[in-house]
Amino acid sequence: MSSPELYRPIELTFDGAAVIPADRTPLTVRLRHAASQAERVVPGFWDGGTTYRARFAADLEGEWTWQTDSADPSLAGRSGAFAVERGDDRGPVRVAHRFHFAHADGTPFRPVGATAYNWLHQDEPLFTQTVDAIAAAGFNKFRFMVFPQGGGYVEHVPALMPFEKTDGRWDVSRPVPAFFQRLERAVEMLGEHGIQADVLIYNAYDRGQFGLNELTESEDAAYLRYLVARLAAYPHVWWSLCNEFDQLERPDDRWDRTGALLAEIDPYDHLRSIHNWIELYDNNQPWVTHASIQNGSVTTDFGRANLYRDVWGKPVVLDEIKYEGDIPERWGHLDAEQLVHQFWVSTAAGCYASHGESFVTPSGSLHMVEGGPLRGDAPARLGFLREVLDGLDIAGLDPIDKWDDPAYVAGIPRRQYVQYLGRSAPTSWPFRLPIGVPGERLQEGDRFEVDVIDTWNMTVTPVGRRFTLTEVQRNDAYDRASAPIDLPEGASIALRITRVGG
Amino acid sequence: MSSPELYRPIELTFDGAAVIPADRTPLTVRLRHAASQAERVVPGFWDGGTTYRARFAADLEGEWTWQTDSADPSLAGRSGAFAVERGDDRGPVRVAHRFHFAHADGTPFRPVGATAYNWLHQDEPLFTQTVDAIAAAGFNKFRFMVFPQGGGYVEHVPALMPFEKTDGRWDVSRPVPAFFQRLERAVEMLGEHGIQADVLIYNAYDRGQFGLNELTESEDAAYLRYLVARLAAYPHVWWSLCNEFDQLERPDDRWDRTGALLAEIDPYDHLRSIHNWIELYDNNQPWVTHASIQNGSVTTDFGRANLYRDVWGKPVVLDEIKYEGDIPERWGHLDAEQLVHQFWVSTAAGCYASHGESFVTPSGSLHMVEGGPLRGDAPARLGFLREVLDGLDIAGLDPIDKWDDPAYVAGIPRRQYVQYLGRSAPTSWPFRLPIGVPGERLQEGDRFEVDVIDTWNMTVTPVGRRFTLTEVQRNDAYDRASAPIDLPEGASIALRITRVGG
Repeated sequence: MSSPELYRPIELTFDGAAVIPADRTPLTVRLRHAASQAERVVPGFWDGGTTYRARFAADLEGEWTWQTDSADPSLAGRSGAFAVERGDDRGPVRVAHRFHFAHADGTPFRPVGATAYNWLHQDEPLFTQTVDAIAAAGFNKFRFMVFPQGGGYVEHVPALMPFEKTDGRWDVSRPVPAFFQRLERAVEMLGEHGIQADVLIYNAYDRGQFGLNELTESEDAAYLRYLVARLAAYPHVWWSLCNEFDQLERPDDRWDRTGALLAEIDPYDHLRSIHNWIELYDNNQPWVTHASIQNGSVTTDFGRANLYRDVWGKPVVLDEIKYEGDIPERWGHLDAEQLVHQFWVSTAAGCYASHGESFVTPSGSLHMVEGGPLRGDAPARLGFLREVLDGLDIAGLDPIDKWDDPAYVAGIPRRQYVQYLGRSAPTSWPFRLPIGVPGERLQEGDRFEVDVIDTWNMTVTPVGRRFTLTEVQRNDAYDRASAPIDLPEGASIALRITRVGG
Repeated sequence: MSSPELYRPIELTFDGAAVIPADRTPLTVRLRHAASQAERVVPGFWDGGTTYRARFAADLEGEWTWQTDSADPSLAGRSGAFAVERGDDRGPVRVAHRFHFAHADGTPFRPVGATAYNWLHQDEPLFTQTVDAIAAAGFNKFRFMVFPQGGGYVEHVPALMPFEKTDGRWDVSRPVPAFFQRLERAVEMLGEHGIQADVLIYNAYDRGQFGLNELTESEDAAYLRYLVARLAAYPHVWWSLCNEFDQLERPDDRWDRTGALLAEIDPYDHLRSIHNWIELYDNNQPWVTHASIQNGSVTTDFGRANLYRDVWGKPVVLDEIKYEGDIPERWGHLDAEQLVHQFWVSTAAGCYASHGESFVTPSGSLHMVEGGPLRGDAPARLGFLREVLDGLDIAGLDPIDKWDDPAYVAGIPRRQYVQYLGRSAPTSWPFRLPIGVPGERLQEGDRFEVDVIDTWNMTVTPVGRRFTLTEVQRNDAYDRASAPIDLPEGASIALRITRVGG
């Protein structure tokens, strides 16, 4: 094999003497980084027959040694060594600058996500087409469920299920290796396309069809340990406990405990969230790394989504803001212009959003259920949004004057700003910036360049002249000497305002 | 004395043998309700010299017996009995129906509050004038601080302070009885005027002038126990830990512990909150009964304040939405029309708001600091709002279709609704209601009466004809047969829509 790479999974395989029920951890691997003496411990897992594996992703370059520990003598006391080199991987995405994300190597990550809940359970060619389509559109995060979906708009029932049954009941001590190998292949495929895998662990959409929503809390925990042992070494995994968790009638404290368990057992501390239906989860819980919110209405106007940032002090990803499509349900018939608008409103609020499509597919399903080619007009514009975000000089956009700026300008004070002018730009924009707290205060003489971003036509046009602050008031600053910027009236325009001196 | 009344303080006075430092509880009184055998325990307090008192407010009518317990033999083993009769008091205000308030006897309480932080520390006639003015305007809650305020716009320094000093440092074991007797008189005066006393326990506005913000956590706790022992038997007390708590540089977990202590020691479980400056407190903490929020911007447009309800699942009182006044700071120069508008937006969001005035007073201070006569045009309209709220048939206004109704109608489905049309009403309103979840679904044939409420001119005008639903769609219901309601175009209009049959 080629030399193990930093942040990439390194797989160790062991042939055991017997089948160990998978609700127990069959072995652990203790790893030591030679130079720093840092120690890591990862769980192994059963992978069929008497095959056991453990996966490890190194967060430090150089020599590592390892040895196994197990109650089973055939798996205990194995040892080895490897050397890790830096490759292209930037490492897991973490929370950065309180409200934003960055890879382990510090590179900002700006999620612009896609969604197809039941994708994992589709056959080829749909399975691969889906990933190709979302990658081509420029999405960099993808939400999908491990367990299969039941209910409306679901037109395909998978043969492969995650567990065997014992006495007619799902038996979490007997996972189906082929199911989880397929899941891993799915996660790998996303990674190969540069897409973060936002893995929905439990499922509120079973609706009694498969009964996987009826596992007990301890069965859920056994499955969680198994899933983490298999997937956590993939750097691009995000954990989401459930989509619309409150469709399941469970006390919140069961979710609290499950989330806390996940935080405890994941050796890599991947991002963790839970997504709401009608009732919001308490995202102040320490196990939650970022809020994953369903509420389209907060993205339909300014001054809303930013409120969620304040209450949790964590990044906010609006993982359901309704869908581009043509079904009668009001969650599924946004037009592309409106959906793109809502992404830009989310951006100006210092938040992130996810896309989904609800056009009816040839099978009678929806893209957001099964995946497939994208048909809407939004994806290209969202790929463009992502390019704009990736082109920013700053770690993330924060509302500058969060509760008082009538223009909802976001950015980092005195460095770079984005102002979104909404779906219908005025004929011109006189240079004005909010001051806000905290952060550096604008000064007379500060110089800026401005780019006019057409969010629908996907153009970035430098204004081509510089603006200099001539008047700094209590809460706003102006260039009164320069002519206003002419805008394409009625278009969906954003402005990127970058300080270049002064 | 007249017979003790239900919910009203009953005071027991004891002459002790010595001065017991007030950071210890000098005695407790154990009370037993004869009929139910229910037991209550309340702390006593030192009130100067060798005088000790304990106050108790009964929550059950009939015979009670009591006896004291104390480490001091002169205070131990006292006993007695009294009979409690129902009077006019409705009892402490509690959270009701998740997002609203009601007195212990079940009567809904709809807070429309006023604010003068430093009122307690003013001389007569200002002191009494303030209460007369806010009562005359119709406010039913009043926020004020126990500790004196320092900083800008404070023009009066009180002589009376809460503690003696020992070695130049405030000594919480030596409270000043006259200070707390004055506080009690202030609380009583509010009660006599039908006003809930929203007591701000700690003070982020000391600014080093008095040094009362520099008590240690254990000193804060001793003061809290003393305050609770003195005030908690007053039925109309609300506790607010601090206004703009995050102006003080304290770790959040100190506030968590202080709030939890308050919840533990208050025998009456009065309402408890904490009020923010820039950083929101975690109002999911179990000790918090309702969110007390500073954020004027959420009341300037629809679809915002309701978001706070969702994240905490508790009542939301917007205790600072900026002030009616004429000072240069943007928090202090709202005009009355705008402030009244913001109260109605808050109402439609299922929240409550508080008023304050920032006209400069003759002393150079502001009403919101020292009190005095009210000069603005908002108070009369807010008294009118309170009348409208008190006239509702329902326990409170909840957004009917919380994230999807473009009209932001609030109420209880199929019973009563309020729709606020904003600062500039259209010429007419065709009868339409949202359906929403959860709650009863509207039916064709449901009949309604509508009142047109002019929020500025303070009139309620019945439309005088009935409306019958002719069309119930997925998310909205209409009376297509009736002519729209004519409205005074451009006025600030709300509609009260009450089901009367069908």
